[in-house]
Amino acid sequence: MQIAKVRGTVVSTYKTRSLTGTKFLLVQFMDAQGEPIPKYEVAGDLVGAGINEWVLVSRGSAARIDDGMERRPLDALVVGIIDTVTVENNRLYSKKDEQ
Amino acid sequence: MQIAKVRGTVVSTYKTRSLTGTKFLLVQFMDAQGEPIPKYEVAGDLVGAGINEWVLVSRGSAARIDDGMERRPLDALVVGIIDTVTVENNRLYSKKDEQ
Amino acid sequence: MQIAKVRGTVVSTYKTRSLTGTKFLLVQFMDAQGEPIPKYEVAGDLVGAGINEWVLVSRGSAARIDDGMERRPLDALVVGIIDTVTVENNRLYSKKDEQ
Amino acid sequence: MQIAKVRGTVVSTYKTRSLTGTKFLLVQFMDAQGEPIPKYEVAGDLVGAGINEWVLVSRGSAARIDDGMERRPLDALVVGIIDTVTVENNRLYSKKDEQ
Amino acid sequence: MQIAKVRGTVVSTYKTRSLTGTKFLLVQFMDAQGEPIPKYEVAGDLVGAGINEWVLVSRGSAARIDDGMERRPLDALVVGIIDTVTVENNRLYSKKDEQ
Repeated sequence: MQIAKVRGTVVSTYKTRSLTGTKFLLVQFMDAQGEPIPKYEVAGDLVGAGINEWVLVSRGSAARIDDGMERRPLDALVVGIIDTVTVENNRLYSKKDEQ
Repeated sequence: MQIAKVRGTVVSTYKTRSLTGTKFLLVQFMDAQGEPIPKYEVAGDLVGAGINEWVLVSRGSAARIDDGMERRPLDALVVGIIDTVTVENNRLYSKKDEQ
Repeated sequence: MQIAKVRGTVVSTYKTRSLTGTKFLLVQFMDAQGEPIPKYEVAGDLVGAGINEWVLVSRGSAARIDDGMERRPLDALVVGIIDTVTVENNRLYSKKDEQ
Repeated sequence: MQIAKVRGTVVSTYKTRSLTGTKFLLVQFMDAQGEPIPKYEVAGDLVGAGINEWVLVSRGSAARIDDGMERRPLDALVVGIIDTVTVENNRLYSKKDEQ
Repeated sequence: MQIAKVRGTVVSTYKTRSLTGTKFLLVQFMDAQGEPIPKYEVAGDLVGAGINEWVLVSRGSAARIDDGMERRPLDALVVGIIDTVTVENNRLYSKKDEQ
C-alpha cells in the first residue's frame, strides 16, 4: 500500500450503477520522508477517513476484495486510517500529534 | 481512479471480436491541481462522456467488472462523469461552471 | 489501452509451452500528440498487425481475456488496428493517409 | 519482485476488518546496484522480517495468493528474507556480512 | 512483456513455503534500442535462463498462469529465452552473435 493524505472529494452523479453509494476521496501520496508527492488517486473509502488524515491506500484488484466491493469497478481503496509511521525508530507521523 | 479529461476518440475497425460495439475515448490525465499531464489512456466508456468533460477512469481488471464487460480485453474504463472536485474546501472543478 | 506503433518482432524458440504459436510484436508507445515515447511492450497479437501500423495495446490481465488466451502468460496484447485518432476535432492519425 | 530494505512500521488501528492481525512494514526499494531509491511500499509480512533486513516484495494480486491472505485487501507482501544478491559473479549483498 | 538481460541471482532461504523450489533471477530491463535501463525485476524462471541471456519477462498475474505456478506469490516470470529482436528490419539482438 501507499501512504496518502486525504485532500478532498470528488462527486460524480452520473456514474456506472455499480458505483452507487461509493464515496470518492482524493488522496495524495506521501514519500517515505512524509512529504507529499504529485501522485494521487481517487479512492473508494471503507473507513470514513476525514480531510488531512493519513491513510493506507491499496490499488488494483485489492480494492475489490472486501465484502460488498467485489462488483464495483474500483482500482483504489482507503483500507485504514494511519495512527503512526515509524522509520528507523523515528516517529515520522503520529495522528495524535496532528490533533 | 484517476481524474481525466475527454480529449478525443480512437476508431479501430479491425479489432478482436470481443471489442465489437465498444467506443474508445482518448482521455488525458489531470494532476491534483487540475492541470493536464502527459499520461493518457484509450478507455472504454460506460457513461456516454463527451469531449472536454472530466471523468473518472478505472484501470486494470476494474475495467472488466461491470455487467457485459467481463469478456472484453479492456484495461481502462470511464466509470463516471465528474460534477465537482473539491480540494481542502476549494472547488478545483465544477462541471456547471464549464457550461 | 495505449496507442502504439508496431516496430518489430521478437523470436523466442525456447519458451514456456503455453506460449507455443504466439507471435510477439515489439510495439512502441505513442503520446497523446502522436509522438513516440521510450516505453514499449513485447505484445502478443490477435489481429495480424504489420510493421508501422498503429495499434491499441491492452496490458495486464486484459491480455488473457480472449478465447484461447486464458492460459498464456502474457501481460500485453495487440487488440485492434487503429484507423483514426481524433483529438479535439483534429485528425492526429489516419491509417489511410499513411498508405 | 523487487529488492527492498525494511525501514519501519505503520500502525493502523481503524482499518477494514479483513486486515485485522496484519503487520505493516514500510519497505524501501533498492536498485540493481544495491542503493535505495525513493519508491517504497507498505507491505504485509509473511516471514517476520526485521528492521534493515533485505527482503523480496511481491506486488499486485500476488500479495493475496498465500493461504489466509486471499481475503485481505493487500497489494504488497514481503515473501522472503534475502540471503544473498549476486550480480555477474559479484556479491552485491550478503545478509551474513551485515550481522 | 519486457526485454531483459539476466544479470544475477537472489537467494532467499527463509521465504513463504509456497515459493519453495523457485529460482530467482535478477533481470535488468532493456529499452527498445537494446540498452539497459535502471528498472529490474527479481523473477521466477520457467526456462532455465543463464547469465547474460536476453529473456522475455511477464509481470503481474501473468506470472502465475502456467501449471504449477498458480499458488506462488510471484509477480514476475521469465517466460522465454530470446533468439532475435528485429526492429524495422535491423537485427537489434541475436543470441547466436553473442556466443
